[in-house]
Amino acid sequence: MDVRLAWRMMKSVIANPLTAAAFAPFGDVIEKGGGEQFSINRGNCIRHHALATAEVTGDDASVIISIFCGQPYGLPHVLDMVERHPLGSQAFYPLSTNQWLVIVAPDASGKPGLPQAFLARGDQGINLKPGIWHGVLTPLDVPADFLVVDCGGTADNLEEHYFDAPYDVRLL
Amino acid sequence: MDVRLAWRMMKSVIANPLTAAAFAPFGDVIEKGGGEQFSINRGNCIRHHALATAEVTGDDASVIISIFCGQPYGLPHVLDMVERHPLGSQAFYPLSTNQWLVIVAPDASGKPGLPQAFLARGDQGINLKPGIWHGVLTPLDVPADFLVVDCGGTADNLEEHYFDAPYDVRLL
Repeated sequence: MDVRLAWRMMKSVIANPLTAAAFAPFGDVIEKGGGEQFSINRGNCIRHHALATAEVTGDDASVIISIFCGQPYGLPHVLDMVERHPLGSQAFYPLSTNQWLVIVAPDASGKPGLPQAFLARGDQGINLKPGIWHGVLTPLDVPADFLVVDCGGTADNLEEHYFDAPYDVRLL
Repeated sequence: MDVRLAWRMMKSVIANPLTAAAFAPFGDVIEKGGGEQFSINRGNCIRHHALATAEVTGDDASVIISIFCGQPYGLPHVLDMVERHPLGSQAFYPLSTNQWLVIVAPDASGKPGLPQAFLARGDQGINLKPGIWHGVLTPLDVPADFLVVDCGGTADNLEEHYFDAPYDVRLL
């Protein structure tokens, strides 16, 4: 197929601002004000408490903390695959102030349904529930580091799905 | 006691640069290059893998992710108490680029021994092992936010110790 024709035939996915309500089917948004908050340390610290909970399954599974250093993607972004981790949640929190892109998809009989995209601010992280289809880490414009809290262990925890027809993800 | 006399009698603790080797008795330093690293996402991301592991104990214990918004402290810093969490590890990662202060103490028969202080860069986090005596979160100079990974649950997980004689924590 002609490349230009293929591009014109691609289905678009519009990235909307990331909100806790819209993201709830897929997991939690990690942001100040997103949960209970209280003062600790003799008034010197506000704790925004339990914005997300890590979940892991498996005999030797553990909750591990890693740093991901991601190369940036541009918009529109051609989405040709998503992946999921059945054995654990996966949290991403940006270590820079740049906005970034979050792509997820509902499950439809073991395969990803129509993807949804969210534009996250630089002070918003996410925690994907176990088994949620999602795009790879997609910083925008500039390289960016993220703190990642996910599942460690020896079991196979990666399932990938390549779309027959890619989507293009863009802003309105 | 005269305040000036009390100050002169305070024992000083010198904060040294935070390194994984020096911090090892207390926990892990979370920093790029601090562990195994490999390329993922078709070469678009470097994963600095499993820099720390969260550990929690208890019937309803879970690993939770919170955000702490800390007011800054100055140097020298008067350290009059430390605390510990017997049921879980506690990780702090700065969400700004500012240096910050880490204070820990070895255990000595159920009480804290001589405190040790470390000056952490803005791209260094820590994960305290369960039960390690430590000072409260101490950003320096300006208010700062931290991502925190620690233990959720209903059990009492806080033990505090107030020193008979405070320490002053300072740089060389």
